[in-house]
Amino acid sequence: MLESFKEKVCRANQELAGNGLVTLTFGNVSGRDFNTDLVAIKPSGIAYDDLEPSDIVLVDLEGNTVEGELRPSSDTPTHLVLYRAFPSVGGITHTHSTHATIFAQAMRGIPCFGTTHADYFRGEIPVTRPLERDEVESDYEANTGEVIVETFADLDPSRMPGVLVAGHGPFTWGTSASESLRNSIALEEVARTAFGVLQLAKDAHPIPDYLLDKHFFRKHGPDAYYGQR
Amino acid sequence: MLESFKEKVCRANQELAGNGLVTLTFGNVSGRDFNTDLVAIKPSGIAYDDLEPSDIVLVDLEGNTVEGELRPSSDTPTHLVLYRAFPSVGGITHTHSTHATIFAQAMRGIPCFGTTHADYFRGEIPVTRPLERDEVESDYEANTGEVIVETFADLDPSRMPGVLVAGHGPFTWGTSASESLRNSIALEEVARTAFGVLQLAKDAHPIPDYLLDKHFFRKHGPDAYYGQR
Amino acid sequence: MLESFKEKVCRANQELAGNGLVTLTFGNVSGRDFNTDLVAIKPSGIAYDDLEPSDIVLVDLEGNTVEGELRPSSDTPTHLVLYRAFPSVGGITHTHSTHATIFAQAMRGIPCFGTTHADYFRGEIPVTRPLERDEVESDYEANTGEVIVETFADLDPSRMPGVLVAGHGPFTWGTSASESLRNSIALEEVARTAFGVLQLAKDAHPIPDYLLDKHFFRKHGPDAYYGQR
Amino acid sequence: MLESFKEKVCRANQELAGNGLVTLTFGNVSGRDFNTDLVAIKPSGIAYDDLEPSDIVLVDLEGNTVEGELRPSSDTPTHLVLYRAFPSVGGITHTHSTHATIFAQAMRGIPCFGTTHADYFRGEIPVTRPLERDEVESDYEANTGEVIVETFADLDPSRMPGVLVAGHGPFTWGTSASESLRNSIALEEVARTAFGVLQLAKDAHPIPDYLLDKHFFRKHGPDAYYGQR
Repeated sequence: MLESFKEKVCRANQELAGNGLVTLTFGNVSGRDFNTDLVAIKPSGIAYDDLEPSDIVLVDLEGNTVEGELRPSSDTPTHLVLYRAFPSVGGITHTHSTHATIFAQAMRGIPCFGTTHADYFRGEIPVTRPLERDEVESDYEANTGEVIVETFADLDPSRMPGVLVAGHGPFTWGTSASESLRNSIALEEVARTAFGVLQLAKDAHPIPDYLLDKHFFRKHGPDAYYGQR
Repeated sequence: MLESFKEKVCRANQELAGNGLVTLTFGNVSGRDFNTDLVAIKPSGIAYDDLEPSDIVLVDLEGNTVEGELRPSSDTPTHLVLYRAFPSVGGITHTHSTHATIFAQAMRGIPCFGTTHADYFRGEIPVTRPLERDEVESDYEANTGEVIVETFADLDPSRMPGVLVAGHGPFTWGTSASESLRNSIALEEVARTAFGVLQLAKDAHPIPDYLLDKHFFRKHGPDAYYGQR
Repeated sequence: MLESFKEKVCRANQELAGNGLVTLTFGNVSGRDFNTDLVAIKPSGIAYDDLEPSDIVLVDLEGNTVEGELRPSSDTPTHLVLYRAFPSVGGITHTHSTHATIFAQAMRGIPCFGTTHADYFRGEIPVTRPLERDEVESDYEANTGEVIVETFADLDPSRMPGVLVAGHGPFTWGTSASESLRNSIALEEVARTAFGVLQLAKDAHPIPDYLLDKHFFRKHGPDAYYGQR
Repeated sequence: MLESFKEKVCRANQELAGNGLVTLTFGNVSGRDFNTDLVAIKPSGIAYDDLEPSDIVLVDLEGNTVEGELRPSSDTPTHLVLYRAFPSVGGITHTHSTHATIFAQAMRGIPCFGTTHADYFRGEIPVTRPLERDEVESDYEANTGEVIVETFADLDPSRMPGVLVAGHGPFTWGTSASESLRNSIALEEVARTAFGVLQLAKDAHPIPDYLLDKHFFRKHGPDAYYGQR
């Protein structure tokens, strides 16, 4: 079932590797079908080159496998917490891309130093608090989702489509699997540049809000004028 | 109209991606046809792989679309200000290439630390002042062009074919679209190297003017002896 | 003899180059056949592109050539010391991959700053002490193996499948040649990220043991649940 | 004349680009034919992709063109000074490879921090003094060669097959064009690693001489045992 949807999720997983965002099998993309509320996700530990649409696993929002022979990604519970908490999200990408992971491991958010950042993320990209011992020892993957949701208590996930999990790496999302992938590509480039800015100018400060908003709303929302109609 | 000209501008846009200067759709190249004073430019938000010569939009120097079904790049007003102010410029490239953008976001010019730089840019590559709130809130893209022109009050754009827009990224130019692209490739390499020099030797100083001029004029102007006759 | 085994070792050597882990001929992979206790290794100084399975040299654990026309890698004595000391090891990879070598040359272990690291290496990746003059002047390559074994006096090589040789570079291992290669890919990515973390946050500290163990044992040992059954 | 020799020099120039050592047309390789003492060199300003063996220019050691329609590289006088001063040199490569150029622009030699370096260069890779105004204003390219020769007053070019020209970039050499190219690849990797070592450990010190000599003479000279007989 949902063959063309599974094909899109499969392709987004394969494009992870082509864009240099993952090493070995360190990453996964999922998508939500808004009609059925089923989630399609990469099977665990399979090489991207070998992946076929029929390998993609379909699960419901409680994590029951609905279709597929293979085990879903071990990160599936994290994705499901996010889909339940953020109803408008239609795709999620998790990578260990180098520079976003450097910020996650250093437990620093990524300040908005420029318009490339502002085109995709409205403000500083947040980092979660570290998980406590008990949150790691039981229901670790679900708790990874919960700490992301906690971080977004006062943030709008449609204007901040990504987060850094402390000591781990980035998750990004979007209205579809492919949009979540594009946001993970943008996040890595934004992180690479911000890393360099902090090397060059330790006291660099973020761009002013009026420039941030100009760029973000030039591309997003009712007054957007970037791209084609 | 101007089919072979549009084809050259199209190819220069595609080469942006092949040279690692852009991520996603973060960049554009335009060209000016000196006979008609028409400008050919990339349409907004189109992937480089999908671009065809017939997608290239022709606009006049006031920004009226003369030919083309698609919206021109949202950066078109910036390009047009530069074409009007710098009459000898025949091509403009805008990227968010990583190291040039790092300098732009850190709001530092790029000192001339070596002969690679001197071969292309005669002296420190300047950074604009940041735009004020009102310059961002109305006519933002045209004002981006105006602040570049202001930065060049005492600079010759034919000897300094590029600039960093503060908090944003680089623009380069040349006598044609392809020369502006070559200058953007050179700029990124120059920025990458200068970034490293500043990591290795915080107090590095620029090369002396006699070495700068030797290299610049070995390649440019009536006494050039680099390349073929 | 052992044709399919030699073919696997040959392929692992070729994949070294494809994964950007080696420059010129700076690296080699070997494998142990557990039935015969013979070791298959790359011949010395041969380009990866030119390598054929029939070029792979078979030696016994004392270093006598059993099959092959070419000289085995000059690092063969190092590999053999490790195979003798670590009976469960079935493959060894030696590279001069950039970031792992930076840590080896700076004589610093790689702290476990994140879960990417914890997925492969249970704790800080150790660096050996430097070799003394007499250890270099005679039996240098065997002594390189001995100093690794000394470093593992209190470490389990199956939970820490890699090491940095001071002033030299990394060795990784695994149950097979291809697993040792995967560990060398993981090591380079872990080193690249840790290098960045230390640039961004000089006082960064390792992740807590409960997170380290969660990730390591999610992938390794009887309770692993990562990957397919 | 010398067709197969010109073909080798042509191929070495093309491999410059494939190895990521040059951007645009920033580099050249030459070779000396020991029978005729003629030098084959890249023509100036020609793209690597377009280069054919018949484009390679033959000059004598005084710089007179013996064969070829195109202008030889503007760096030809530098190459000729080196061929005249270093009689055993059969090939020279000049690049602006990023990390070697960073050291050249920072005017720092590259200390020998590890065995990768010691395999190719016996000790710190030297940097020349900057050229004076009069040395730049007349006979600039020949004087670039002279300052290299001056730097080697107490160095053996067969044990130190490369140099950094202050404020400019690296030159490497070898017994043939292709060996000089391999040395330029090794130099860039050595520079990249040393750059990282200095970021990680400001007070890093070179490896001891006994380790340096072990590695250098394992690969070079009468007692070499690296590679095939």
